[in-house]
Amino acid sequence: MTTTSTPRRRRSDGERSRRAILLTAARLATVEGLDGLTIGRLATETGMSKSGLFAHFGSKEDLQLAVIDTAEEIFEADVLAPAMEVTGLRRVEVLSERFLSHVGRDVFPGGCFFASAIAELDTRPGRLRDRLVDVQKGWWGLIEGAVRDAQASGEADPGADPVQVTFEVNAMLAEANGLYLVLGSEAPLDMARRGVADRLARVRLTA
Amino acid sequence: MTTTSTPRRRRSDGERSRRAILLTAARLATVEGLDGLTIGRLATETGMSKSGLFAHFGSKEDLQLAVIDTAEEIFEADVLAPAMEVTGLRRVEVLSERFLSHVGRDVFPGGCFFASAIAELDTRPGRLRDRLVDVQKGWWGLIEGAVRDAQASGEADPGADPVQVTFEVNAMLAEANGLYLVLGSEAPLDMARRGVADRLARVRLTA
Repeated sequence: MTTTSTPRRRRSDGERSRRAILLTAARLATVEGLDGLTIGRLATETGMSKSGLFAHFGSKEDLQLAVIDTAEEIFEADVLAPAMEVTGLRRVEVLSERFLSHVGRDVFPGGCFFASAIAELDTRPGRLRDRLVDVQKGWWGLIEGAVRDAQASGEADPGADPVQVTFEVNAMLAEANGLYLVLGSEAPLDMARRGVADRLARVRLTA
Repeated sequence: MTTTSTPRRRRSDGERSRRAILLTAARLATVEGLDGLTIGRLATETGMSKSGLFAHFGSKEDLQLAVIDTAEEIFEADVLAPAMEVTGLRRVEVLSERFLSHVGRDVFPGGCFFASAIAELDTRPGRLRDRLVDVQKGWWGLIEGAVRDAQASGEADPGADPVQVTFEVNAMLAEANGLYLVLGSEAPLDMARRGVADRLARVRLTA
C-alpha cells in the first residue's frame, strides 16, 4: 500500500470498473459470441489497455466465466426474483412474462444471453459449456418444480407430465427469443404469451 | 483446352471434389460456426492446399454461401421431399418427423445446420444472414401453408390461427434440436413428437 487515505473509495472504484467492463463484455458476447470475447477485443471496446484488462481478469476463460456470472446476476434480478414472490402456475406465468419482457427490452442486444451462449457452445465440451448447461438446468428446474407444486396443491391436473409441460413452455420462450432477433418484430413475443397461457390453461383445474 | 479426350470425366471429378469439400465444410460449420469457416481452417480439415481451395471458392463469403446451398440441398432431400408427397396436417406430421429424424441421425454433428447458423448470425446483417432468413421463412411457409390447406379442405378447425400453430410446432422442433445437443439424449426428440401430435390433435376436426 502506498497510501492509506482512501482505500475504501479506491477499492469501490475498482469494483465499479470491473462491473462496467463485465457488462460491456456480456452485451458484446450476445452479438459476437462468447468465444469472440478476447482481452484484445474487449480492450478495443472499453478503451482500456490490454495489460489493465489482464490485471482484472487473467486468462480469456476466466474473463468468459466472469461474464457468465454477471449475466446470471442480471437474469436473476430481472427475471427470476419477481417470480420467487409467487408459487405454482402463477410462478410459471411470471417467469414467462419476465423472460419475454427481458428479451423485448433488449437488456442484451443479442437477446437472452444464455440462449445465445448455449447455441454457440453446445458442441464444445469444457468448463464454459458445463457452466451454461447448469444455468439452463436450473431454469428448467424452476418451471418443472412450479408445475409439480401446482399439482401437489390441487391447482393443476395431477395427470399432466411436468417435464413435458416444461419442455413446451420453454420451447415457446426460446423460439420467441430467436424470432424476435431474426425478424426484428415483437409479434413472436406475443405468440409465446398466447401459447404459454394456452398450455397452462390445459393443465389448470377449474373449480 | 489442352486435351479433348476426357473432358467429361475430368469435370465430373472436379464437381465430386467440390461437393466433398462443401460437405466437410457444412459439417464443420455446425460445430465451429459458419464464421469460423475460413479457407485456412478448411485446408487443414481437408488436407487440400489453400491455393487449391481459393481456386474452388474465391472469397470466404463465397465459400460460406456455397456451404449454405449444400446444406439446403441436403435438408430438401432428407426432410422436405418426403413431406411433399402428402398434404394438409399429414404434411406437418411428416415435416416434423423427418426433421426430428434428421437431427437424431446426426446428419450434421451440430444438429440442424440452419438453427445453428441463424443462432450465430442473427445479430450480424449481411448476405449470409439474409440467405439464412429466407431459408427459415421458406420452412415456416411450408408448415403454415399445410395448415391452411387442411383448413380449406375441412380437415382442420377454420378458427385456428395458422401462424400460431406454426410458431408452436416449430418452437418444439427447434427446442428438441437444441436439447438433443446439450443433453446428448433422444428424450427431447420424443417430447417434440408428443407435443406436435398434441398440437395437431387440437386443430384436427374429427368426423
